[in-house]
Amino acid sequence: MEMGIVVGRVTATRKDENLVGTKLLITQAIGLDGAPLDSQPVITVDTVGAGIGEKVFFVKGSMASRAVRNKDAPVDAAIVGIIDSLECRNFKG
Amino acid sequence: MEMGIVVGRVTATRKDENLVGTKLLITQAIGLDGAPLDSQPVITVDTVGAGIGEKVFFVKGSMASRAVRNKDAPVDAAIVGIIDSLECRNFKG
Amino acid sequence: MEMGIVVGRVTATRKDENLVGTKLLITQAIGLDGAPLDSQPVITVDTVGAGIGEKVFFVKGSMASRAVRNKDAPVDAAIVGIIDSLECRNFKG
Amino acid sequence: MEMGIVVGRVTATRKDENLVGTKLLITQAIGLDGAPLDSQPVITVDTVGAGIGEKVFFVKGSMASRAVRNKDAPVDAAIVGIIDSLECRNFKG
Amino acid sequence: MEMGIVVGRVTATRKDENLVGTKLLITQAIGLDGAPLDSQPVITVDTVGAGIGEKVFFVKGSMASRAVRNKDAPVDAAIVGIIDSLECRNFKG
Repeated sequence: MEMGIVVGRVTATRKDENLVGTKLLITQAIGLDGAPLDSQPVITVDTVGAGIGEKVFFVKGSMASRAVRNKDAPVDAAIVGIIDSLECRNFKG
Repeated sequence: MEMGIVVGRVTATRKDENLVGTKLLITQAIGLDGAPLDSQPVITVDTVGAGIGEKVFFVKGSMASRAVRNKDAPVDAAIVGIIDSLECRNFKG
Repeated sequence: MEMGIVVGRVTATRKDENLVGTKLLITQAIGLDGAPLDSQPVITVDTVGAGIGEKVFFVKGSMASRAVRNKDAPVDAAIVGIIDSLECRNFKG
Repeated sequence: MEMGIVVGRVTATRKDENLVGTKLLITQAIGLDGAPLDSQPVITVDTVGAGIGEKVFFVKGSMASRAVRNKDAPVDAAIVGIIDSLECRNFKG
Repeated sequence: MEMGIVVGRVTATRKDENLVGTKLLITQAIGLDGAPLDSQPVITVDTVGAGIGEKVFFVKGSMASRAVRNKDAPVDAAIVGIIDSLECRNFKG
């Protein structure tokens, strides 16, 4: 899983029928210090009630679909948790 | 999922029999500002009636096949929605 | 799917028994202009009768196995079509 | 699989119900010399009792879920072994 | 699939029970000329009796598990063939 921050939301009227009712959030990957990375943001399905500005972790690939109620939804990224805190040691020293 | 813009179309007479009848569009990933990224475009199966110049989002990997009617089609990228609008906040500031 | 050009062939006597009889072609990803990219070539299973020098498109990941007759073959890349032509508009302008 | 070192731990109260009870460790990929790479760390489910500072190897993608007891858990990275030692030859000349 | 050279071996006493008995080799991706690339080496399960220094090709992702006898093994990379020879043409002009 990757860490990210929710930065936005996508509105899409025409979409796969199995995506109807899903909340599509734009998530930017972040580093251990919480700062956004240079990578491109990802459209993720929210499954835990995340809001803009919250730090989350998300699953990519086919396993993302496990988090979604509709088992036919074509989904490759899903937010599966909200980060309370990180405990982290520096080994790059 | 990733955001993209449809930039073209592929014609292929000889192809896997399970791809016959699919519409193969060339999609270029775009950033939050809608500008094309430097990444290579992807051949995507269109499942929502997208046209050239439209901004879409697409699924990659095995989940792309869920969007395709033929359940034996060898597909690793599919357009699953057309973007109406993005609501987005900047956290890079 | 990605666009590529077939650049070679792999001979392998010792291989997974479910790969016996497959044609293993080396495919180099290409850009919209047909020029080879700097990425590393991929070993792809040919399922459409492609030959060296032909422009093709190929599937990656588990969906590649759908194109292969032997449903137990451990395959993560397969050529699934030969490109006749691309119709493409430039949005980078 | 990739080699990594466990560098931290994630606490998340709100998460997918199928992740309840999993131990979420932050793993940094390392090179053959054991030094951390520049890549971003990954949130991995621990399935072998790994601790911070231990060198491990982890599986990514849908196969990671095989290592997790709950077969509905949305998981794309899991620690599946602790490295005792590497035997390695240099072919980079 | 990718081309690689076997450069080492991993010893791991504590590991997922479904990995017990697997031979874990370290494989470095190579180019068409056989020279090691700059990418990080991968831990691969050997399924064809490969040895250190041999040139092989390996499968990544969930399809790697098809090459492994234990169908519950959490495996995302497996050596599935030993390269006898490459026949290759240069299209980079």
